[in-house]
Amino acid sequence: MSSELSFIAALRGLAAHPAARHLDDDCAVLEIGGEALVLTHDAMVEGVHFLGQQDPADVAWKLVATNISDLAAKGAEPIGALLGYQLGDGDARFVAGLGEALAHYGAALLGGDTVGAPGPRHFGLTAIGRATCRPVPSRGGARAGDGLWLTGAVGAAMVGLEALRRGSGDSLAYRRPRARLAEGIALAPHVTAMMDVSDGVLIDAWRMARASGACLAVDSAAVPLACPESRRAEALRWGDDYELLFALPAGATPPVPATRVGEVLAGPAGCLRIDGELVESGENLGFEHR
Amino acid sequence: MSSELSFIAALRGLAAHPAARHLDDDCAVLEIGGEALVLTHDAMVEGVHFLGQQDPADVAWKLVATNISDLAAKGAEPIGALLGYQLGDGDARFVAGLGEALAHYGAALLGGDTVGAPGPRHFGLTAIGRATCRPVPSRGGARAGDGLWLTGAVGAAMVGLEALRRGSGDSLAYRRPRARLAEGIALAPHVTAMMDVSDGVLIDAWRMARASGACLAVDSAAVPLACPESRRAEALRWGDDYELLFALPAGATPPVPATRVGEVLAGPAGCLRIDGELVESGENLGFEHR
Repeated sequence: MSSELSFIAALRGLAAHPAARHLDDDCAVLEIGGEALVLTHDAMVEGVHFLGQQDPADVAWKLVATNISDLAAKGAEPIGALLGYQLGDGDARFVAGLGEALAHYGAALLGGDTVGAPGPRHFGLTAIGRATCRPVPSRGGARAGDGLWLTGAVGAAMVGLEALRRGSGDSLAYRRPRARLAEGIALAPHVTAMMDVSDGVLIDAWRMARASGACLAVDSAAVPLACPESRRAEALRWGDDYELLFALPAGATPPVPATRVGEVLAGPAGCLRIDGELVESGENLGFEHR
Repeated sequence: MSSELSFIAALRGLAAHPAARHLDDDCAVLEIGGEALVLTHDAMVEGVHFLGQQDPADVAWKLVATNISDLAAKGAEPIGALLGYQLGDGDARFVAGLGEALAHYGAALLGGDTVGAPGPRHFGLTAIGRATCRPVPSRGGARAGDGLWLTGAVGAAMVGLEALRRGSGDSLAYRRPRARLAEGIALAPHVTAMMDVSDGVLIDAWRMARASGACLAVDSAAVPLACPESRRAEALRWGDDYELLFALPAGATPPVPATRVGEVLAGPAGCLRIDGELVESGENLGFEHR
């Protein structure tokens, strides 16, 4: 039937509230009592976002980390989370991993719902954080002349998943991703735009270009890899690394370790340039949620 | 495997946050900037909470109404919601019903996530409201001597589901439940305990008894029915009506239409008395989420 994008476009037409506004596709900011709360919700489904045979503690960790990563991209410090949980095998392991991850990021479990149902396991988490910087960064603020930067490296989750499937080698980066929380909070006052790379550097850069009404030029050779050089093209299209992609005014340098991977051009608006070549659609750039 | 209750008990041991506290099993209160936010999350799964052939607009309505009902029981006015949505047939109808329900309850769609996955459809909603009354009512405050009251009647959803399955008759109460939002806000300053009846009057009264450390005595003949008298025993064990069950100090009368259905006794703590007969466990009292 419909794709994620058309569904989200339809949702955009729904009711508004004076205290709340959308921030990017997936986050909202709620102004309350002089504070700004950042809210996000991410789901994970067996066979789509994790393997059925994975340790439920790792699945829980990743569910928390992916949501905290959304808060990190907004420079928000975590407060808590609500869980949607489908009961099944390994519930105690799930609770163990959930507790580890929540403690690691300083978030409380605020509530949730459990369901007993057949079929692939579904888990959802809503994370709530407090903005440390106003205005709260979004992916929509990149301006011509800005430098484009990336924390860390990509490709680790890709080779991690392969190790997990193979049953040998280091799969930690896939199983237990780390949200760049401290980096996001340090960067928030300086960036013109920021987002976490959940679906791949290229597709997420394309989304930042669209949201900003600018053209993002990516120098693919500049992107640091955590996998063999021979797999660069794949690694740029692979998600799950949860690094932060951000734009900084020309001449500015980031307060945390990061690599300059491109620049922001005036146009064509909403397009990506990969090594000089213009890309007008998001197809074949990374993971899409359809 | 584990049941809902043992899972929730395990979750209770997880990390806390100074600004947040649990309120009952499913809700949290977040104190921020002098305001109190109420947060809740409810999920719905095809084949468990709705029929596969149902109009997705009705499913969306119910997803919103069940969450708003949790806010109503806390006397909170809705602000917004985050959606976890599994893409599939009827996405446009789902958006239509979601929009109707959110507009009806004055809530904004704040964000969410979409997933493409096989198997029964899963939807989750996190609702956020602003408390209108402090302390925020919980199910845990019923005291010996209080009267036990219920808004509206029960059994309508039960006969509504039967009509829907049969393909004739009025199924509206099952398909489009109404959250008692105005009633909850009016009641909040007066109640000692309040909860919405999502799983059945008897099991939810038992839960209120457990949370309050009191004994709730229910006069089953006093409970108003929206179904034939011959089905009273079933209707008291059927969920999905979303009426409010609340305790009021002796002699107080509620500011909204409601029926006195029993009283609160000192003990045995955590027990239910149905027409004088003591019930010590929640078994066979209504719907359980395992």
